[in-house]
Amino acid sequence: MAQNNKSQQKRVTAALLIIGDEILSGQTHDKNLPYIAESVNSVGVQLAEVRVVPDIKQEIIDAVNALRHRYDYVFTTGGIGPTHDDITAESVSEAVGLKLIQNPEARRRLEEHYKFNGTEINAARMSMANTPEGAELIDNPISTAPGFKIENVHVMAGVPRIMQAMMDNITGSLEGGATKLSCSVLCNLGEGTIAGGLSDIQGKFPEIDIGSYPHYARGDYRLSLVIRGFDETELEEAQQAVFDMITDLGGDPIKGKDTESA
Amino acid sequence: MAQNNKSQQKRVTAALLIIGDEILSGQTHDKNLPYIAESVNSVGVQLAEVRVVPDIKQEIIDAVNALRHRYDYVFTTGGIGPTHDDITAESVSEAVGLKLIQNPEARRRLEEHYKFNGTEINAARMSMANTPEGAELIDNPISTAPGFKIENVHVMAGVPRIMQAMMDNITGSLEGGATKLSCSVLCNLGEGTIAGGLSDIQGKFPEIDIGSYPHYARGDYRLSLVIRGFDETELEEAQQAVFDMITDLGGDPIKGKDTESA
Repeated sequence: MAQNNKSQQKRVTAALLIIGDEILSGQTHDKNLPYIAESVNSVGVQLAEVRVVPDIKQEIIDAVNALRHRYDYVFTTGGIGPTHDDITAESVSEAVGLKLIQNPEARRRLEEHYKFNGTEINAARMSMANTPEGAELIDNPISTAPGFKIENVHVMAGVPRIMQAMMDNITGSLEGGATKLSCSVLCNLGEGTIAGGLSDIQGKFPEIDIGSYPHYARGDYRLSLVIRGFDETELEEAQQAVFDMITDLGGDPIKGKDTESA
Repeated sequence: MAQNNKSQQKRVTAALLIIGDEILSGQTHDKNLPYIAESVNSVGVQLAEVRVVPDIKQEIIDAVNALRHRYDYVFTTGGIGPTHDDITAESVSEAVGLKLIQNPEARRRLEEHYKFNGTEINAARMSMANTPEGAELIDNPISTAPGFKIENVHVMAGVPRIMQAMMDNITGSLEGGATKLSCSVLCNLGEGTIAGGLSDIQGKFPEIDIGSYPHYARGDYRLSLVIRGFDETELEEAQQAVFDMITDLGGDPIKGKDTESA
């Protein structure tokens, strides 16, 4: 059967590698995943896998290599500061098989920044200029020390406001494919009540993914049915089918344009 | 050199597999990682890796198999409800090479629960009784549908309050090793200022991990230095060394018993 252009558009995928003992210990709560997921999705790239690994060089190397060959883009967060536990640049260099160098432009930016601030220039601070040979810098408008891009790997800071500024500098440069759209239907029926009908609708729309997410809003039970796909017409048809099914079951559904309203 | 008993105690590790399109799309923010990290750490098990994968059977199977052979324990969250996108039980069964059956005790609990509530018993609801053959159930005091344990894999719900109740039922049964302790020193010096001294201290305490985490508290810059290790005496010595180093650099350090106070 002929498919329309949107469904035929290339699917472009990304993986996120979160680097840091502090996430694995539970002491720091990651806030970067949702921001990166939404940023890449806005330009037609789908986040397809996330890994969190400790500050151990071989673990970072293995994860970078597993992910960079499998996905179109890899983003890393964390481990690019000046202290001994910041080993992302050297690990990524080793993963891609390139020499770690002191990037001249990164060095220039850091020296200028520290001179302006009257901050001492020392070896630890200048280690933030280290990148694999041939890397492109990712601007850091907050604290100057840049991230970098080498091949399909984008290395960013872990501090959320710095990461967000870096991501905003990257997003426009990504070559996306089809944009995954989503809409939703909210109701208060039990998952077990709608599961049979929902499965039938899923069967009729194989290109669409329908997810079912029970939750509690101010103590009241709610069920969000999120419909995701690449074709707007199909998405609307699936949403209507879910809406009608819930109405038939005696529920009181509400359509949402995206999950934020669900 | 002789090490003390604490350092010689076995290190026991765990991995977490978060299953769900809704996490990868950024629409749902995971709240389970920190809870699980802290739960397992409280009984001497360290969370060593986390992966997030979509609701795709082969992805779940591959991740379960990669993790269960490498770590002492695996925990999964998500995908155990009654709808078509809940494929964790069948995926885990396939990963461990065991038949998916309707667990008799799970079936009994669900039937009793639905009869008591006057809820219709249907195929979708009863699918929540499916487990690999020989699995042990994990009690669900909130909505009855149980999780399960098969070999070293613990399958739990994704809804945080259900997951937390399940985790609380598991934690006491884990056989932990050495408990990773942490303490901290808080200051407002730049990372670049303390990096050299910190690296020296790290060199003197190879069994201890020192992490450096800059952040902003009510707009003010703060630097948390978190010292993690298995030996309390070594930890205190490293903390004192960091404290003294910061004092010498003109900073105004504050010791914390753990990261919560950092």
